[in-house]
Amino acid sequence: MTDTTPLPVARTIADLRAHVSDWRRQGFTVGFVPTMGALHEGHLTLVREAVRRADKVVASVFVNPTQFAAHEDLGTYPRQEAQDAALLAGARCHLLYAPSVEEMYPAGATTTISVGGPAEGLEGAFRPQMFGGVALVVSKLFNQVRPDLAVFGEKDWQQLMVIRRLVRDLDIPVEVVGSPTERDGHGLALSSRNAYLSPVELETARRLNGILAEAGVRASDGVVAAEAWASEALIAAGFDGIDYVAIRKADDLSPFEGAIDAPARILAAAKIGRTRLIDNMAV
Amino acid sequence: MTDTTPLPVARTIADLRAHVSDWRRQGFTVGFVPTMGALHEGHLTLVREAVRRADKVVASVFVNPTQFAAHEDLGTYPRQEAQDAALLAGARCHLLYAPSVEEMYPAGATTTISVGGPAEGLEGAFRPQMFGGVALVVSKLFNQVRPDLAVFGEKDWQQLMVIRRLVRDLDIPVEVVGSPTERDGHGLALSSRNAYLSPVELETARRLNGILAEAGVRASDGVVAAEAWASEALIAAGFDGIDYVAIRKADDLSPFEGAIDAPARILAAAKIGRTRLIDNMAV
Repeated sequence: MTDTTPLPVARTIADLRAHVSDWRRQGFTVGFVPTMGALHEGHLTLVREAVRRADKVVASVFVNPTQFAAHEDLGTYPRQEAQDAALLAGARCHLLYAPSVEEMYPAGATTTISVGGPAEGLEGAFRPQMFGGVALVVSKLFNQVRPDLAVFGEKDWQQLMVIRRLVRDLDIPVEVVGSPTERDGHGLALSSRNAYLSPVELETARRLNGILAEAGVRASDGVVAAEAWASEALIAAGFDGIDYVAIRKADDLSPFEGAIDAPARILAAAKIGRTRLIDNMAV
Repeated sequence: MTDTTPLPVARTIADLRAHVSDWRRQGFTVGFVPTMGALHEGHLTLVREAVRRADKVVASVFVNPTQFAAHEDLGTYPRQEAQDAALLAGARCHLLYAPSVEEMYPAGATTTISVGGPAEGLEGAFRPQMFGGVALVVSKLFNQVRPDLAVFGEKDWQQLMVIRRLVRDLDIPVEVVGSPTERDGHGLALSSRNAYLSPVELETARRLNGILAEAGVRASDGVVAAEAWASEALIAAGFDGIDYVAIRKADDLSPFEGAIDAPARILAAAKIGRTRLIDNMAV
């Protein structure tokens, strides 16, 4: 059961800053959890982590158009603000920040950010606009909220590495906290896009995590062979297409030249019908 | 005569932040003046403006390599920190921030910023790396210093417009203050690069301001004709080459389609020998 205490909502930068300034005057630290809404237990874990680490917590709900390509699911991405607000209140969040697209991107804006490094390849290859859009909106949100710390899920591991690089390269004074992936009882990483899956597709989706885990074990005998094995196993399990299965250096996501000689991560993106799922874990 | 009271110098981000945090705890506002050193009266005017507007003022001296192209004057750009520190102390600056290149750009950095809009054309066409370099270093410096306001000279008008756009597009909570161009008794805009000029070249350089002023008057009879007249007049005055003379909209530096129907600025870049000078003024 979630607490349904009404949560204050800020819809403008000015209103958001008024809340945060008031907290700062009282000496409170501020944590921040940026989301695209359609909240599930994975997001609430991030909020609870922020609540543990900071006195006051802002969660944003903003379906960021700059990180979707024209053919992607911007229009159908689930939006359910009232339910999100109730869930955030139950997780002891202090403020919901839900700006309009016009508030975030006024007419005439032209600035773009390219993170390079960890943003190249994998998701960056299949969704070329994504990490530029993420870097831009996170930079803006950090400047709007000015939190002490922000919590991101390891579910989007590459995004987490991109944000760490962005923060380091631009000297943004925000501590970036990564939080482990929440999974259902069958190992499926929680995702707002799981809502697109039919019961039969859900059975297939639940195989992803186990196949990546076994490929991670096989990686010690050869990275390329383990990646190929995982792709075949995913197709055999019922996936309709594999964007990538890759074993990479965990921090900058560069490929290994030969044997694994640094902390490694296996990452995958695969499709079931029209639904695209991602997952990753330490090797 | 300048006061030669020793000025505290911070060489690391950590040391800078310690100074600023101490001021913040005491409730002081903070102003910031970023420079590339080789300070002259133009810079000191910016510092005095910051001192008028904020309780404490940081000036940075950093010759930013990312805004120079390989063929430009990065290696020979004048460096004179002891003299700069004495001048800043005389202007009542409170802290000199002089980081090393390694402190500003640690190995492994990959993030870049493109401002677009006002960064396109004019200086952006002749020095394609410049405004990306400026946007990156100013973003970093703002995150390092976290000032309430920052003062920039109108001498670099296009840069000032680029920084205003950057700050607006990324929601950076810093007030950007433009300060009018300081000139010598003959109208020459003060510039660190004036030090490259021989006495004969100096005489030619001093004609730039008057020719732009007259072209501004002629602009009401036609923008293109006024630009062409100014280019010819500059060559006749002894300039060896004209990168551009352009009458543009003052805020976004876009060209006029026909008659001047918005606030306008005339901007020029011209060479005397190997020295490249820029200037601008309201039309």
